[in-house]
Amino acid sequence: MPKQVDHQERRKVIAASVWRLTAAHGLDSVSMRQVAADAGISLGQVQHYFASKDDLLAFAFDLVSERAEARITARMTALHDQDEEPEPRARVHALLIEMLPLDEERHLEAHVGFAFLARAAVEPSLAERLRGTYGSLEKFVADQVRLGQRDGTVPLDVRPDREARTLLAMIEGLTAHVLIGDYPPAEAELAFDTHLDELFGR
Amino acid sequence: MPKQVDHQERRKVIAASVWRLTAAHGLDSVSMRQVAADAGISLGQVQHYFASKDDLLAFAFDLVSERAEARITARMTALHDQDEEPEPRARVHALLIEMLPLDEERHLEAHVGFAFLARAAVEPSLAERLRGTYGSLEKFVADQVRLGQRDGTVPLDVRPDREARTLLAMIEGLTAHVLIGDYPPAEAELAFDTHLDELFGR
Repeated sequence: MPKQVDHQERRKVIAASVWRLTAAHGLDSVSMRQVAADAGISLGQVQHYFASKDDLLAFAFDLVSERAEARITARMTALHDQDEEPEPRARVHALLIEMLPLDEERHLEAHVGFAFLARAAVEPSLAERLRGTYGSLEKFVADQVRLGQRDGTVPLDVRPDREARTLLAMIEGLTAHVLIGDYPPAEAELAFDTHLDELFGR
Repeated sequence: MPKQVDHQERRKVIAASVWRLTAAHGLDSVSMRQVAADAGISLGQVQHYFASKDDLLAFAFDLVSERAEARITARMTALHDQDEEPEPRARVHALLIEMLPLDEERHLEAHVGFAFLARAAVEPSLAERLRGTYGSLEKFVADQVRLGQRDGTVPLDVRPDREARTLLAMIEGLTAHVLIGDYPPAEAELAFDTHLDELFGR
């Protein structure tokens, strides 16, 4: 394996330990030492790959986002393969369904995402980073709502920006409730689908 | 002041330090020592009032819930004073508006509530406690949706339990986004009001 690829692969393996520890015990339980123990390597090796805990956490978070983005891109591509001009509802669904904890992979990501969201409430630099991500998501959803209005499926008195915020907030909240075991993932999915049906007038 | 009242008052003053520290630095930053420093008393005094950190955190959380409940009760009473049979929409509004971070008091509570929600994702005993609270809230909201269906304001194909979950999830999500500064509190309130209008058919 070329050295650069190997370096990046090792960083990913270490990041996966951060995810597991976060999902099991919370973000604040994550220390360089515990990550080393979980990954089965020495503390020195972790420090070789990451200059600081902040560096490690930022990488672990970015990797979760990238993984979700890759799945979203795959879904969007599949959608466009089926239909050159997919419906706005289908596009919004393809995006947001990847953020709900509906299988083991997304459950782990949701734990990590939610833990970072909670930390962002008291860490302005992380909040700024998240606002950037949410801003893009909100814009994409708002654009689809506008397209729905042009198609005539969404009523014209709906405010696209507000609907986008509402929908994203709902996804975050449903995720949190699934994580605390308030209801099963399938119920969160049904609530999401029902809201999409209402919004896009089915 | 009678001794028992004084004891309870002092516990409340200490709990307020837990809230401040949680809102400023997160729940995991809270230690008995830091609480003592914030409250301007000795560590020994904190330990006199609370047997353990868990005991202190549980009290601080319950107190936040009680404070919100007291405001909700006041709102409901005012509603019933105006109108013997308040509209279901007004009842749901009275309940949930007290959970959005729309002023300094609710902002502080939202910080505490959200921090505990995040911790519940990795702490089953806390999750169980929260599920109890959410269960009552969901039931109340679902009952109002059913009343709306009887009044003819809510369509009969709406599932009351699902709508209640969606609405609560939305409130949690809007709160999280306000806490990270994604949009101002007034925008969260408008999103909430808009959804209520849609649900109760205005």
